Amino acid sequence: MLILGLDPGSRCMGIGLIEEQEAGLRLILAKAIYPPKGNDLGEKLGFIFKELVELIDTFQPKEVAIEDVFFATNARSALKLGQVRGAAVAACAWKNIPVFSYEPTKVKQSVVGVGRASKEQVSFMVKQILKVKDNWPLDVSDALAVAIAHLNTRRFNKMVQSK
Amino acid sequence: MLILGLDPGSRCMGIGLIEEQEAGLRLILAKAIYPPKGNDLGEKLGFIFKELVELIDTFQPKEVAIEDVFFATNARSALKLGQVRGAAVAACAWKNIPVFSYEPTKVKQSVVGVGRASKEQVSFMVKQILKVKDNWPLDVSDALAVAIAHLNTRRFNKMVQSK
Repeated sequence: MLILGLDPGSRCMGIGLIEEQEAGLRLILAKAIYPPKGNDLGEKLGFIFKELVELIDTFQPKEVAIEDVFFATNARSALKLGQVRGAAVAACAWKNIPVFSYEPTKVKQSVVGVGRASKEQVSFMVKQILKVKDNWPLDVSDALAVAIAHLNTRRFNKMVQSK
Repeated sequence: MLILGLDPGSRCMGIGLIEEQEAGLRLILAKAIYPPKGNDLGEKLGFIFKELVELIDTFQPKEVAIEDVFFATNARSALKLGQVRGAAVAACAWKNIPVFSYEPTKVKQSVVGVGRASKEQVSFMVKQILKVKDNWPLDVSDALAVAIAHLNTRRFNKMVQSK
C-alpha cells in the first residue's frame, strides 16, 4: 500500500511517498517542489498540477493524504493556499486517486502523540518512524507525517471493523 | 478570438464563452455548473477540473479570464473558494491556455462603467452588450462579464501598442 502525502504551500510543496510493508513503513520518496514565483497564476498552478500528475504516473500511489488547513491569517493568504491545494487535489482526482484530509492536530497526535507538537518534533518523529537520518525541509516532513497519520488511521479503522 | 470567462464559486461555477467577431461580440455559451455537495474534496474538485477540460477540448478557447477575488469574509471560506479557483486554473494550465485575472471593480468598470455596480446591473449590461434576453444565474453573467472585460482590455492594449 503506497501512500502519497502532501503539504501544499504557496512557496513550497512538501511531497512524501511511504509504503506500508510487512516489516513496517518504508520511505520511498521525500521531495520539495518550488512553483515558479511571480504573478502568473496559470504558470504556478499548472506547474504543481503537472509535477503531481507525473509523480502519480511514475509511482502509482493508491491513496493521497493531505493536511486540512485551519489557520487564523487573513483571507488573502487563505485564498492563495486554497488555490495551490485545489490544483494539487485536482491532479489526484484527475488520476482517480482518493484524497483524504486530516486536521494538523490529528496528524501531530498520530505521529508525535501530542496534538500541539512543533514542526521540529514532527520532523524528529518522522525520521524515527521511517528509520532515516536525512534532513528535509519541514514541509517535506509534514508531508511524510500526514502519510503516516493516514496509514495509522487506516490500520486502526481496519482493526475496529474486524472486531 | 474565443474567450472563456469563469466565475468560480464553491457551490456554483459560472461559465461564459464569448467570441469577438468583426460585427461585435457574440455569445457562444452561458452555463452554470454545480459541483457535487458533501465533504469529498477530490470528488468536488475533480468534477470541476473534468468539466472544464471537456469544455476546453470542445470549444478550444484562446484565452481564459477569471475574476480575482478580494473579500472580507473569513479565512475558511477564502480557502474553499481558493480550492475551486485552483482546480479551475489548473484545468486551463493543463490545456496550455493562458489565464488572466481581473479585479471585480475592473470588470464592473469595464462592463457597466462603474466600479461599484451591483451584480444585477452587471447582468443587465451583459445582456445589452451581447444582445440577448436570456435569464441566467448571476454567477453566469459574472463569468460573461469578465470575458467581456478581458476582450475590452485586449482591444485597448492593442490600440495603445499600435500608436
